[in-house]
Amino acid sequence: MDKLLRIDMNTQTHSVESLGNLGGLGGRAMTSAIISREVPPQCHALGIHSKIVIAPGLLSGTTAPMSGRISVGCKSPLTGGIKEANSGGQAGQVLAKLGYAAIVIEGKPSDDKTYKILINKDGVKIEEDSSLKLMGNYELIDALRSQYGDKICCITIGPAGERKYNTATVAITDPELRPTRHAARGGAGAVMGSKGVKAIILDDTGTKRRQPKDPDNFKKAIRIFTEGVLKHPVSGEGLPALGTPFMVGPLNALGAFPTRNYSQAQFEGAEKLSGETMASMQAERGGNMTHACHHGCIIKCSGIYHDKDGNYVSKLPEYETIYAHGANCGIDDIDAVAQMDRMDDDYGVDTIEMGNAIAVAMDAGLAEFGDAQAAIEMVKEVGKGSPLGRILGNGAHITGEVFGIERVPAVKRQTMAGYDPRSCFGIGVTYATSTMGADHTAAFMVAPNLFNIGGSLDPHKPDGQVEACRNFQIATAAIDSTGMCLFVAFACLDQPETFQALVDMMNAFYGYKMNMEDFSAIGLSVLQNERTFNKDAGLTPADDRLPEFFKNEAVAPHYLTFDVEDEDLDKVFNF
Amino acid sequence: MDKLLRIDMNTQTHSVESLGNLGGLGGRAMTSAIISREVPPQCHALGIHSKIVIAPGLLSGTTAPMSGRISVGCKSPLTGGIKEANSGGQAGQVLAKLGYAAIVIEGKPSDDKTYKILINKDGVKIEEDSSLKLMGNYELIDALRSQYGDKICCITIGPAGERKYNTATVAITDPELRPTRHAARGGAGAVMGSKGVKAIILDDTGTKRRQPKDPDNFKKAIRIFTEGVLKHPVSGEGLPALGTPFMVGPLNALGAFPTRNYSQAQFEGAEKLSGETMASMQAERGGNMTHACHHGCIIKCSGIYHDKDGNYVSKLPEYETIYAHGANCGIDDIDAVAQMDRMDDDYGVDTIEMGNAIAVAMDAGLAEFGDAQAAIEMVKEVGKGSPLGRILGNGAHITGEVFGIERVPAVKRQTMAGYDPRSCFGIGVTYATSTMGADHTAAFMVAPNLFNIGGSLDPHKPDGQVEACRNFQIATAAIDSTGMCLFVAFACLDQPETFQALVDMMNAFYGYKMNMEDFSAIGLSVLQNERTFNKDAGLTPADDRLPEFFKNEAVAPHYLTFDVEDEDLDKVFNF
Repeated sequence: MDKLLRIDMNTQTHSVESLGNLGGLGGRAMTSAIISREVPPQCHALGIHSKIVIAPGLLSGTTAPMSGRISVGCKSPLTGGIKEANSGGQAGQVLAKLGYAAIVIEGKPSDDKTYKILINKDGVKIEEDSSLKLMGNYELIDALRSQYGDKICCITIGPAGERKYNTATVAITDPELRPTRHAARGGAGAVMGSKGVKAIILDDTGTKRRQPKDPDNFKKAIRIFTEGVLKHPVSGEGLPALGTPFMVGPLNALGAFPTRNYSQAQFEGAEKLSGETMASMQAERGGNMTHACHHGCIIKCSGIYHDKDGNYVSKLPEYETIYAHGANCGIDDIDAVAQMDRMDDDYGVDTIEMGNAIAVAMDAGLAEFGDAQAAIEMVKEVGKGSPLGRILGNGAHITGEVFGIERVPAVKRQTMAGYDPRSCFGIGVTYATSTMGADHTAAFMVAPNLFNIGGSLDPHKPDGQVEACRNFQIATAAIDSTGMCLFVAFACLDQPETFQALVDMMNAFYGYKMNMEDFSAIGLSVLQNERTFNKDAGLTPADDRLPEFFKNEAVAPHYLTFDVEDEDLDKVFNF
Repeated sequence: MDKLLRIDMNTQTHSVESLGNLGGLGGRAMTSAIISREVPPQCHALGIHSKIVIAPGLLSGTTAPMSGRISVGCKSPLTGGIKEANSGGQAGQVLAKLGYAAIVIEGKPSDDKTYKILINKDGVKIEEDSSLKLMGNYELIDALRSQYGDKICCITIGPAGERKYNTATVAITDPELRPTRHAARGGAGAVMGSKGVKAIILDDTGTKRRQPKDPDNFKKAIRIFTEGVLKHPVSGEGLPALGTPFMVGPLNALGAFPTRNYSQAQFEGAEKLSGETMASMQAERGGNMTHACHHGCIIKCSGIYHDKDGNYVSKLPEYETIYAHGANCGIDDIDAVAQMDRMDDDYGVDTIEMGNAIAVAMDAGLAEFGDAQAAIEMVKEVGKGSPLGRILGNGAHITGEVFGIERVPAVKRQTMAGYDPRSCFGIGVTYATSTMGADHTAAFMVAPNLFNIGGSLDPHKPDGQVEACRNFQIATAAIDSTGMCLFVAFACLDQPETFQALVDMMNAFYGYKMNMEDFSAIGLSVLQNERTFNKDAGLTPADDRLPEFFKNEAVAPHYLTFDVEDEDLDKVFNF
């Protein structure tokens, strides 16, 4: 994994470079380094100077478990700042095995032709293929499978990316070649679309797993790490049994489950949307709550959702999808949520953004909260690219602006995940200050606020939130660089020997002698790159704030408003 | 004019205050002072902490000619920064005669009822009137006239303001009670709409002209000033004869007439849109090229446009409207432009923003450039509030984002006026750096670049543009505070005795002893307030830039790109 593949879409040519001073970087550290070095921060995100970078993690393509995350980096057309959206699926492992530490796509064609890029052990081919234009991801993958066979994995965009929606995703296929994993947030798919690239087809036939420098210690660290992940109640029990929807019940009980466009924090229909409900339903229907989104995953939270006739619909809807398309739209019909999840994956849009856009539209009176059929029709408009569909497809912020709605739960124009910051101040600090916009994965402060994981903080008090969020952001940025799924963090945070084993895997693989502090330094460096890019792009402390209504509107059951002072938010990056 | 009227729309009550330390301020100096003192820069522009301020100029309500401009200030929902949009019409004179130096409207009703505010010599009445809801400005004025008689003048919003479009205007009636003058830019109408205020009805019956401290010197200064304005070729000849459309021919000849969404800078149909063409047409149809938008105007550039059957359509379309709805959409049908001008006034939207939004939509393929009927249909959608209409009604920037178009001629999300910055670097400096977004009136650098007025600079070179733009911005901010129409500036810039007479009017009226430097200090102070507000709102040097395509795409006939360095743009406010 010592090559950088540079694709120039001005000329539809490529070159393979050595990593040079990018050597030793992976995942988010790689994408954020390249974007901050090569992309002018003030350029148009969809313009000729913009680039998109795809990078596996430092441990991707090895036998390390959970190491299949892939990072997609760009200047976000949604936030105007830097973006790293990461995803599971097969591409991280495969790209690493093919030897590429990063793909950089730059320039843009002068026409609006549609291109595909095949990457295998023999090299790289860039070809025009107008037959793929505006195909949904599912149909697209079928077409690619019929051209290239079953041994591929794909990085694709749906029509949303081609139309350059701010919510457009980069889709990654799972082991069964379903386009269900997505680098979803911040419109990375639009940047790929602006470059005319519809699909990247990876085929690792004839390649081998990457080999560690110190095989014995690598194996040993893997064993300790695996045990640690599997013994933690979240990654060993909750996630495998119910997937991320295990959180529906607890979050609703805690009064932090955003409902009806954040006008409430508990949903009377939560039980119908819960992981437990889906588990018993899918047991009957032949779906599966336990499924690995990439080879080497030992948690297996992704799941398979079947309809009442026993037919495949989509992956198991994630907690965030259930919140956004479900409770936040007042919808308690989990089949409708799964149907929208499938449509979102097919069109290639971020489910969080899409659900929230519909919630804002409902708040504006376009439909009644709870009207699942109306919500489905709205998603169809997104697929069609009608004016209404384009509004929604550009996310909740644009939807709010176009329909004159003030209550839009977004920071840096990116909407929040499913944890009301009025009931969980820590996640509010993350939403406000993350370099990525309101991104729960930047520092999952729900853990120490609501689950006593990685510490224990009163979710209704500002005390200690800023310091903890700083540490979580640093650790997360480091983990996001390894290719590890962030769901290893529960075990790492609670079990020092598990975190140590992660560092030991890195040391054994690369022959490093990092300690925990060195590992943290990776995260620190990532955040510094990202903050600098954002500052130069024109973001300021004014962008590190929650929307005004979180300070003005209290909701049941806690009747609190978000109460972390602005000047404390500005201390998150004091390092 | 020593009272401040504060209207609290939380409770629909009002209070009359003394000016306190706002004394001595007028027009833009007043609105920008109140907004920067009272509005939190990071608040939601349409939220409860936002305010809208309406202020006549320091010489409004006196016998000083040209003194009827009125300033409308707010935090702009379009730019996110401070906004002063000013307008002609009768309201400035009448409000000043009623003794109010400013109206401040704050808070917002908890319901979405529609309110009107009557202000006369007996006081202030705030009343709900749901019968006015979503009325177009023309119908609205008829309704108010039937309630309050002919002696009123009105400050109103159309349905665009009620729907909180970013392009929504605050309309001001002319002497014949037509809603044709608009504080048009930056969405001030949306802020008024967010407060539930549909109409402010002013009646100055029983009031008198404001009296100067030194009547003799006031008269004397007026005489010199009047002579100066009338002897200058622009304000004495060009504007009275042809209105602002006198510029169509010259700007097209100079290759600075933006055409087909800025993909060209000359329009083959320019002659059909010219002031000369309208003059001969309106002579036949019984329209009028020469009309005063307020009592006391001696230039009379506003005009009356009749259709081919001799019926009133609208005011004479301004140069900016002709550029935006005409050439920039490839449309050479002046009757169609006048019809859209009328519709824009009726719905209450900024004609510049609306024309440019349609141009961007045409660039996105929604209609062919040149299809006037398609453009009219698009404006109708704006009036209906359909999804497409709401996209367009939120301006060119949102339209570009929603339809994935990079070529949007906007700075701080506000679109440019009709002077291509690649062919007139000076106006590019204004567009980039104005506190208001791309606002030609902030410093009309077209004058020294293309007309040798107020100096003489090569429009195709950066030399001297920054210094001149700084001085123009300062002088303009001062003039905008007096209530004077900016069209006095041509004479003031070229004839020192005319500028001196303006200062002498101020001195004689207020008993001041200002010199030119003191007068400039007014402008300087305004700009400092505005820059500080914008900085605190989160605007940075990154917002003081032209869109990327002006650096990448050269156009005929000069084949230049905008070539003023970023670091030089950052020197505009070095004072």
